[in-house]
Amino acid sequence: MPMDFTERRIKSEMIYSGRMINMWLDTVVLPNEREATREWVEHPGAVAIVALDDQERVCMVRQYRYPVGQELLEIPAGKLSPGEDPLDCARRELLEEAGITAGHWEKMFSYYSTPGFCDEMLHLYLARDLSIGDNQPDEDEFLEVCMMSLEEARSKIRTGEIKDSKTLMGLLGLDR
Amino acid sequence: MPMDFTERRIKSEMIYSGRMINMWLDTVVLPNEREATREWVEHPGAVAIVALDDQERVCMVRQYRYPVGQELLEIPAGKLSPGEDPLDCARRELLEEAGITAGHWEKMFSYYSTPGFCDEMLHLYLARDLSIGDNQPDEDEFLEVCMMSLEEARSKIRTGEIKDSKTLMGLLGLDR
Repeated sequence: MPMDFTERRIKSEMIYSGRMINMWLDTVVLPNEREATREWVEHPGAVAIVALDDQERVCMVRQYRYPVGQELLEIPAGKLSPGEDPLDCARRELLEEAGITAGHWEKMFSYYSTPGFCDEMLHLYLARDLSIGDNQPDEDEFLEVCMMSLEEARSKIRTGEIKDSKTLMGLLGLDR
Repeated sequence: MPMDFTERRIKSEMIYSGRMINMWLDTVVLPNEREATREWVEHPGAVAIVALDDQERVCMVRQYRYPVGQELLEIPAGKLSPGEDPLDCARRELLEEAGITAGHWEKMFSYYSTPGFCDEMLHLYLARDLSIGDNQPDEDEFLEVCMMSLEEARSKIRTGEIKDSKTLMGLLGLDR
């Protein structure tokens, strides 16, 4: 019988209700009956897409990421709208960000990005059989799209130029 | 000449100052000169360790993750203390959480966990030549340590039982 480490919530305070995330400060009872506080971020969940064309080039997007103060090279991705099916969201984001529709979709895996302080689950998809058109970013969304050979992408992992979690995960997951 | 998508901060408001994370609401100027707000989480950064014994078993830790309301199977990991060198942090966390000291350390890579809303950088290490003793968790830290064959770990990726980002990254990164 495995030990049960469940932490029981006895109080919950919303610190911040935002456009994308909410922040909570909860009080819990630990397995040893002591109380502790848990600060955590509520996130709607997200999708990311490894989109491969028939020359095995992967779609990459360059955009500025304010929290880390730099432009990052990433695979297309986006947040789930309320109630949205992750695959529908993946189709929508790939079209909006990269102007791509795909004939073949495959789920790779889903994972918790940072379960120590946030509930975000990320759903990773592989898209093939691509039709590439013009992208449709939001008015205030600035990004540059390119198709990059897997060889070049792997080399950018080695050099550290690719340093975004979901992008690494998608490229490494492809190789297994 | 690549386009510059930099967002310039013109106002910064601290929403919450916590034990582990801080939350900020900033106002920025976009490349099109319009203003926008950016809500983001400040995190000290973290380390995670793929610790492999001489039978190619990997050290795994089971612990309750409050934000996602369940126990997760993860590689040992922990947050950086202020000014702490990531490798020193990795040695400390591997000893505290798993009771393991390692004779050989290798940097795998570093990445941003969720650059869309948080500045956390995670540093991933490979540790070999292990000496396994008793762990030294904090008084209020509850975890179960085990050594698991890479074969079993890979099977738990396929079944979805392993769903923690850094653990997937470490195991997938090992295979490339």
